[in-house]
Amino acid sequence: MNAGIPRPVERLMEAFARLPGIGPKTASRLTYHLLRTQADESLELSEALRELRSGTIFCGRCFNISAAGVDPCALCTDAGRTSELVCVVEDPLDVLAIERTGQFHGRYHVLHGALSPVEGIGPQDLRIEELVKRVAAEGIQELILATNPTLEGEATAMFLKRRLLGMAVRLTRLARGLPTGGDLEYTDISTLSQALEGRSEL
Amino acid sequence: MNAGIPRPVERLMEAFARLPGIGPKTASRLTYHLLRTQADESLELSEALRELRSGTIFCGRCFNISAAGVDPCALCTDAGRTSELVCVVEDPLDVLAIERTGQFHGRYHVLHGALSPVEGIGPQDLRIEELVKRVAAEGIQELILATNPTLEGEATAMFLKRRLLGMAVRLTRLARGLPTGGDLEYTDISTLSQALEGRSEL
Repeated sequence: MNAGIPRPVERLMEAFARLPGIGPKTASRLTYHLLRTQADESLELSEALRELRSGTIFCGRCFNISAAGVDPCALCTDAGRTSELVCVVEDPLDVLAIERTGQFHGRYHVLHGALSPVEGIGPQDLRIEELVKRVAAEGIQELILATNPTLEGEATAMFLKRRLLGMAVRLTRLARGLPTGGDLEYTDISTLSQALEGRSEL
Repeated sequence: MNAGIPRPVERLMEAFARLPGIGPKTASRLTYHLLRTQADESLELSEALRELRSGTIFCGRCFNISAAGVDPCALCTDAGRTSELVCVVEDPLDVLAIERTGQFHGRYHVLHGALSPVEGIGPQDLRIEELVKRVAAEGIQELILATNPTLEGEATAMFLKRRLLGMAVRLTRLARGLPTGGDLEYTDISTLSQALEGRSEL
């Protein structure tokens, strides 16, 4: 026993510390917070964690997360969205980010990662062939390749471009440039170069 | 349904976001992390949360957290510790901090907070009377009043001093001064004043 910490307390601290971005100090702070507050709070979190897996599936069409039993997902079957425009993203969190803009009314395709030779992630690990099949089957006019503006994201977009060569679909990338609220003085060379290149008429 | 997020995902995001220091962005990052990793990880966290309450109690003597069924707690019954010296702290986390120094071999008393008129926390909300009874009953020679060096912590220590007036027990406070690794130039006036006042012979 470490400094008289009861095992259940230690166990929760360890489980919290396994989460990304949560160090041992935050883990113990969260644990002692839950010991202080109403028992409801830790039980609700416990139940929510249990339900996370039992209550969700991956959509068989776009591979975004969907409620259990809802396949294809609500976004894939939403009649208010066009099927001609599909936004291709790395992760389900990217879908959230794009939905928050309220500017996109097409459908999605989640690759579940990006190509990364360093981490051993190849094309067969991503939902790429499923995307190719969708392009052929669903009459998609444009794919917005919204993978991240990183080495891996760019490599994935270039791979998709080659893989879809000869198919009658327009491929686009999200614009690159200065972020809103950014400071020119502190902008990195790559971003500034691309902001110059993509400059628009005033 | 918010942007096609399945209810179980939303529920977990909300439960995480209720924790202190975890905002909506971190909550969704943690949730999507758990969706990606092995199901074991969320189930282990779920179980640990459930066990937190069923597996722990507050020690009836020192009010630190103890394993269920272990009362008084392991620290209170450890024969290698002296009962003459008791360290009085605000929270169970403070016990951890002091134990980490490896320098203290007495017992503890956890008040579960500090006096705060602003937050409506009065003496009756803290384990103060229980401490007074311990001083009378256990032959305690010295109480280290290790409440925080804050307004509330100081007020609590002063209240305890008045409350214990006339009892044959030595009361001490932790030393105030420059923290290790601190920078004199950036030290606040109060800390520097107390460092000067408490200066020691070289």
